[in-house]
Amino acid sequence: MLDIRPVAYVIGLLVTALGACMVLPMLVDLAEGRGEWHVFLTSGIITMLTGGLVALACSNGIGEGLTLQQTFLLTTGVWVALPLFGALPFMFGATQASFTDAFFEAMSGLTTTGSTVFAGLDELPKGLLIWRGLLQWLGGIGIIVVAMVFLPELKVGGMQIFRSEAFDTMGKILPRATQISASISSIYISLTVVCGICYIFTGMNAFDATVHAMTTVSTGGFSNYDASFGMFSGPAEYVAAIFMILAALPFVRYVQMLNGTENALLHDSQVRAFIATIAVLVAVTAITLLWIFPHHPEQAAREALFNISSIISGTGYASVDYMQWGNFLIALFFFIGLIGGCAGSTACSVKIFRYQLLFASIRVQLRRIRSPRGVFVPRYDGRPVGPDVLSSVMSFFTFFVVSLGVFAVVLGLLGHDFITAVSGAATALGNIGPGLGDRIGPAGNFAGLGDAAKWVLAFAMLVGRLEVLAVYALFTVRFWRG
Amino acid sequence: MLDIRPVAYVIGLLVTALGACMVLPMLVDLAEGRGEWHVFLTSGIITMLTGGLVALACSNGIGEGLTLQQTFLLTTGVWVALPLFGALPFMFGATQASFTDAFFEAMSGLTTTGSTVFAGLDELPKGLLIWRGLLQWLGGIGIIVVAMVFLPELKVGGMQIFRSEAFDTMGKILPRATQISASISSIYISLTVVCGICYIFTGMNAFDATVHAMTTVSTGGFSNYDASFGMFSGPAEYVAAIFMILAALPFVRYVQMLNGTENALLHDSQVRAFIATIAVLVAVTAITLLWIFPHHPEQAAREALFNISSIISGTGYASVDYMQWGNFLIALFFFIGLIGGCAGSTACSVKIFRYQLLFASIRVQLRRIRSPRGVFVPRYDGRPVGPDVLSSVMSFFTFFVVSLGVFAVVLGLLGHDFITAVSGAATALGNIGPGLGDRIGPAGNFAGLGDAAKWVLAFAMLVGRLEVLAVYALFTVRFWRG
Ligand SMILES: [K+]
Ligand SMILES: [K+]
Repeated sequence: MLDIRPVAYVIGLLVTALGACMVLPMLVDLAEGRGEWHVFLTSGIITMLTGGLVALACSNGIGEGLTLQQTFLLTTGVWVALPLFGALPFMFGATQASFTDAFFEAMSGLTTTGSTVFAGLDELPKGLLIWRGLLQWLGGIGIIVVAMVFLPELKVGGMQIFRSEAFDTMGKILPRATQISASISSIYISLTVVCGICYIFTGMNAFDATVHAMTTVSTGGFSNYDASFGMFSGPAEYVAAIFMILAALPFVRYVQMLNGTENALLHDSQVRAFIATIAVLVAVTAITLLWIFPHHPEQAAREALFNISSIISGTGYASVDYMQWGNFLIALFFFIGLIGGCAGSTACSVKIFRYQLLFASIRVQLRRIRSPRGVFVPRYDGRPVGPDVLSSVMSFFTFFVVSLGVFAVVLGLLGHDFITAVSGAATALGNIGPGLGDRIGPAGNFAGLGDAAKWVLAFAMLVGRLEVLAVYALFTVRFWRG
Repeated sequence: MLDIRPVAYVIGLLVTALGACMVLPMLVDLAEGRGEWHVFLTSGIITMLTGGLVALACSNGIGEGLTLQQTFLLTTGVWVALPLFGALPFMFGATQASFTDAFFEAMSGLTTTGSTVFAGLDELPKGLLIWRGLLQWLGGIGIIVVAMVFLPELKVGGMQIFRSEAFDTMGKILPRATQISASISSIYISLTVVCGICYIFTGMNAFDATVHAMTTVSTGGFSNYDASFGMFSGPAEYVAAIFMILAALPFVRYVQMLNGTENALLHDSQVRAFIATIAVLVAVTAITLLWIFPHHPEQAAREALFNISSIISGTGYASVDYMQWGNFLIALFFFIGLIGGCAGSTACSVKIFRYQLLFASIRVQLRRIRSPRGVFVPRYDGRPVGPDVLSSVMSFFTFFVVSLGVFAVVLGLLGHDFITAVSGAATALGNIGPGLGDRIGPAGNFAGLGDAAKWVLAFAMLVGRLEVLAVYALFTVRFWRG
């Protein structure tokens, strides 16, 4: 029998912690003085009480560590429980959201997707705005820890190639998982602070700088304005681009750099591939934009850098309605969203290391054409890659693509046109944020979709954020069979 | 140094044979008496002369068999050379096509894609119509032989799992590749004849029955009418559905059945998966169509069976403009096109056995969750599957999806909207035929695309038909390096 008490215990603790985080937006609302602080007081009390009681009730079940099954259940359980409670302020507060809308927004936050169902952001109480930013910020650090500590153990999506490496390297510096998390967290906090300060230098006020720093470093993409980064065109876009890229790099490399391995970042082959990809795409986009703004080369370069960084990192800030930029960039941006950032960062989607592994495997096959009897092994970052990693990556990629198809067909069933259905499924599964088309494109939002579509998309966000198979495993009979 | 003479010799012979086939449309044109027969006389003489001279010039290079490199070059070379000459009648004949249009049509024919650049088919001389059918029919039998004999040797796209099996089984009955081809060809011819007779029974005239039998059994999908199967609604749709499905089953099983293994077809796991998939999809589609034609249950069932069979087998006949059937079926049909039929048939696209292999690999991974120390091997049709097959399948799937993205972006660059770009890339790469949207959807055709888009799509057809990597291998430096 699967003992769920240790799982419920940890989830209870994390829910309690989420409730405690509601103090921050409460203080912001108190300072703003629109009388909205009680929203977070109520939500916080409900959340902390429920979480605390669950943890208390299950504390008798704590053993020494978790089984693999329990770890799977925990990973998905956390990302279902936290949005349930993270949704409360949206239901009680000025947004007066339905449960569906509130859950969608909280899931979109905690998975760092950044699709929003709210219009009129500019007018919302500051507490709700910072709560949206905080959900993404917590989701971002949460996923790095999960990707570093849990997913390699679960052997999901080929993440196991980072297991030995991360633990070997970390093993020398930091012996335990909690210490890994602590050291990653301090990097994450520092990046956020520096990003916020840079935003202030570009002229943002302290509040916007704080929220946008949180949603930049988490590659979440929530903004305080309906116009998103259209509010801040100019220097702020350069700052955003730099920090979105930094947030999409593997955080363990920063730890190594701080510990004296200065080249840690550039020695990582996924980092090199990621930067090279961005460079090529920015160049192509900038050249295309020069046709659209022929007299503004700086604007073309800036918009290219900002939008490519925003989409490839899965942040999903928009500075303009790029549906107006013509069919080439629309199609390009759609497929770039399916590339994604580096593993062990806050970025999502397929991720660049999987393409590297897939291409390494293809290269080996082409080599066999020349030497049919030769023995060749695909390599990643100079090391041989085992068949189990390759088959994990293959499974991930297959399930990602098949899920994309299934979610799109379901959205079609719910009455959405082809471009909304396909781009909606992709943006949710890839945790990107904006879709394509008039409705959910960069100029629209997700408010107009039906409730069923919102639940489908919220589920797709969860599936995408947890590397697909970590969630699907729970739906198999085999998993639950005693 | 790569000796291309043996390759050129075989291609020369095949071009000569294609030229000889032009006698058939010439006779049809003679019988019709519109004075068009000279088109095929001229084309035939040019084709046979060129092919013959090349074969003669290279006959001194024939060795004993081909190297792997030469086999790759031959496979792609055939599918580039034959369309070049197959295009001649479209340039010289009543269609007066440009070289681009003629090549597109011939490539679309020989790859059994079935996208057409010609409107006003109903008025064309019969010689050209039967030439279109004949190109698909030859392309269909050609691909079965290539898939049976060459691709398993090239280890492209996981086709090697059919190698030992096909050759083992065949080994007992028929020792050599030419005999395999002969025995498959007689099945192919018989299916075509029976299909044609059935069409005549449904009321088609002999000419239409002949051409449509050729394009049905090749899962090509060219029709003699702009309205495609809209001309023949009723019993003919049932006949078409049955033969499209039969043509998408592995032909080697028919040979085995004729040789006494009565259950050969149903024992093949890809056949069972394929039939089950069709059954589910037809049921879902029929139920959806009952909302559209509530008072015509027979029509709903028939249109569901016909259209699902047409798309999943990659035939691409249209009976109605299903762009009018609502967003669910549009999205469903798009993704069904990416399933495809069985290996060793005339069907194309990803093919059902690859999904089976990918899912088998995923199942093994899920099993490891329960028993982390257990050793599990993915199985296909009861036999263990080696990692090289899985990595071939993975490479195929990755390159298929990435190619789809790249072709779609290039079509976007050429100015096409998202739905035209994405569905155009998918329909060409999957050798299906119709795309989605107003322009290239089931009610449109490919005439209005620019020349550049036509070349891109023709290349995509080639890539898709030859299992992607067989073509891409030629673009690597490694392949050509002495
Ligand atoms: K995002
Ligand atoms: K076809």
